[in-house]
Amino acid sequence: MPYFDHNATSPLLPCARATWLSAVDETWYNPASPYRAAARAHLALEDARERLATLFGCAPARIVFDSGATEGANAVVAWGAARATRENACIRVSTTEHPAVLESARALTGRRFRPIVVSGDGGVDARALAHAVAAEPTSLVAIMAANNETGVLADLDGIAGACREAGVAWLCDASQWIGRMPVRDLPRDAFIVGSAHKFGGPRGVGFLVVPEIAEGFVAAIGGGQEGGHRAGTPDVVGVLAMVAALEWCETHDAAARERRAGWRDACAQALVDGGIRDACVHGAGAPRLWNTLSLALPPYDAARWVARLDRLGFEVSTGSACATGSDGPSHVLAAMGVSTLRARATVRVSSDWRTTEDDWRALAEGFAATWTQLESEREGSGSGSMVVAIPPV
Amino acid sequence: MPYFDHNATSPLLPCARATWLSAVDETWYNPASPYRAAARAHLALEDARERLATLFGCAPARIVFDSGATEGANAVVAWGAARATRENACIRVSTTEHPAVLESARALTGRRFRPIVVSGDGGVDARALAHAVAAEPTSLVAIMAANNETGVLADLDGIAGACREAGVAWLCDASQWIGRMPVRDLPRDAFIVGSAHKFGGPRGVGFLVVPEIAEGFVAAIGGGQEGGHRAGTPDVVGVLAMVAALEWCETHDAAARERRAGWRDACAQALVDGGIRDACVHGAGAPRLWNTLSLALPPYDAARWVARLDRLGFEVSTGSACATGSDGPSHVLAAMGVSTLRARATVRVSSDWRTTEDDWRALAEGFAATWTQLESEREGSGSGSMVVAIPPV
Repeated sequence: MPYFDHNATSPLLPCARATWLSAVDETWYNPASPYRAAARAHLALEDARERLATLFGCAPARIVFDSGATEGANAVVAWGAARATRENACIRVSTTEHPAVLESARALTGRRFRPIVVSGDGGVDARALAHAVAAEPTSLVAIMAANNETGVLADLDGIAGACREAGVAWLCDASQWIGRMPVRDLPRDAFIVGSAHKFGGPRGVGFLVVPEIAEGFVAAIGGGQEGGHRAGTPDVVGVLAMVAALEWCETHDAAARERRAGWRDACAQALVDGGIRDACVHGAGAPRLWNTLSLALPPYDAARWVARLDRLGFEVSTGSACATGSDGPSHVLAAMGVSTLRARATVRVSSDWRTTEDDWRALAEGFAATWTQLESEREGSGSGSMVVAIPPV
Repeated sequence: MPYFDHNATSPLLPCARATWLSAVDETWYNPASPYRAAARAHLALEDARERLATLFGCAPARIVFDSGATEGANAVVAWGAARATRENACIRVSTTEHPAVLESARALTGRRFRPIVVSGDGGVDARALAHAVAAEPTSLVAIMAANNETGVLADLDGIAGACREAGVAWLCDASQWIGRMPVRDLPRDAFIVGSAHKFGGPRGVGFLVVPEIAEGFVAAIGGGQEGGHRAGTPDVVGVLAMVAALEWCETHDAAARERRAGWRDACAQALVDGGIRDACVHGAGAPRLWNTLSLALPPYDAARWVARLDRLGFEVSTGSACATGSDGPSHVLAAMGVSTLRARATVRVSSDWRTTEDDWRALAEGFAATWTQLESEREGSGSGSMVVAIPPV
């Protein structure tokens, strides 16, 4: 599989596909309808909730099925914004959050918005956070579990401690964590949001874990489904396929993760060894997801790398799919202090459990071949193919 | 097919299933990713938007794909509530709306909420509405195209005229209309919301038509998808299956609708002729969807009809699936002035294009057999099996 853009979306896993197909024939009923076949659909939905709760080690009633992490993040931010107004408090958001968190918080909180700065490696300092939430009343802290562009992991224990101490609610966007790292390691008393399509489940389905602090939290108003937390006919078929996908992902252990991180690191090393001058990995000094490689490859613009690798059969990304086409370089890399020049030359490579060591080796060869090609064209045609060095804004 | 609860949800149409299966293999990519396969997914999504726009006779940019009518209705009500606050105006909502509209409007607008009363046949008087919106500034009117419990159709032209005259935005929940009546007959300049699973598309996907009056309308904040109207990775696979389902539904003409309304009416007539005393059809005097039959069958409680028909192989409903399990009788029937006794004895029967004349005949026989059974048990055991007559509140 030459596909290396799993952080954008991941193809449906075979187990999820099989589950979807049998469920669409058997449990397509509206679980709220009053006859026996509908009751079976209801039971299947509750069984899926129970299984997901078992993975998380939480009460099933805390799990809310929805359409995905954007819906969940928007709803939690709206909840936090309303609480901030009521309590005359602020909302603190890491500057490397996904736009579903960062932009919605900016739009909904106005002058109550406080950015949380990150280090050069993309991490949030939990002690600095503890000081900040002690200094000013805070209704919600938003820090993602794993960054979608760099794969940098948050200090979950440290942040949990700071939030617990101050009695602050935490929105932990785990879209990139779920399916790749054990969900049981996610914080206990946080809002957790995720999307099935990031880990091989169907598109348009996801879930939200609601912490005890948020009794009465409502993401959508209407028919009272999902314990009153989210109205709308539940997508039972999609939920069953999603949970099947996650259970399969969770069969992989720490050794499987380490092995895959090794294949990825060998790929990065091969580029440096192969003579790609100035190649560097963003967040290299921080704990990172085993599947993500955010590579600055100056002086060539990321769009050129992507187009040429695509022709060689490798699908990689310029950064977050949600920011593709937007003006300016990645806000994540800017927050980490990466120069505009290097950010524009950054390629994101992301694998899944199905990606093999051979796939990573082939990708390294693809990078090397592209480098040789770009360099020879550059020597032949002057500097026309370089990125223009624009000073960071 | 003995399934008669299509207003709750409808099984996936074969064409939608086939489309889903080929799309999940070919166009599962994130349409915002920068390589060629993702560009093909993007083109497939835009082609689906174009086809849907052709059915509606509107500009493709006005169509926003989302997770379904509850999400759409909630977002439009929130938009209207914000506008009402800004303009010191009210929101007017028909008392027979789905809870996704009625409850969200009550929750979000408080003292700005104005109910629109309906007639005994469930219709809104467009002239009374025109007077009301002229008398008090109104930011949003919410009147559904076809009622989910009774199938009663709104006076679309009259309401459109009243809203246009006063420059008021209209939320037209068309969840039950779409796929059953031509979408081209829906109002031009209204918010229209719908869910794929009501007309044989997949669960968890739907769409919203945004009127020109609502430039800048945002249902979800984040990656800027859907022209900035709704963030989140679009469910391309689900959208393609949904549009395939709707295009198939739209191949049916007025004659096909009339024929099916006839089968339904013959079923209702057979019950009356067969001696079910006091049987009556709610909204019988109003134009109704061809697929819906809301039948009061006193003195027996609807739950008993549903359970016994289920045993005979017929799946019918006690009312809206979204209200199942809620206390008290249907708010729709109460708004139409139906007594609590008759509302509690009301069964909802709803078909789709696949339901045959033989299915309707068999259902009438099922009703007759159940009636005979209930009556004989009643004669044998006194009045224990009757609903208790509670005066309307």
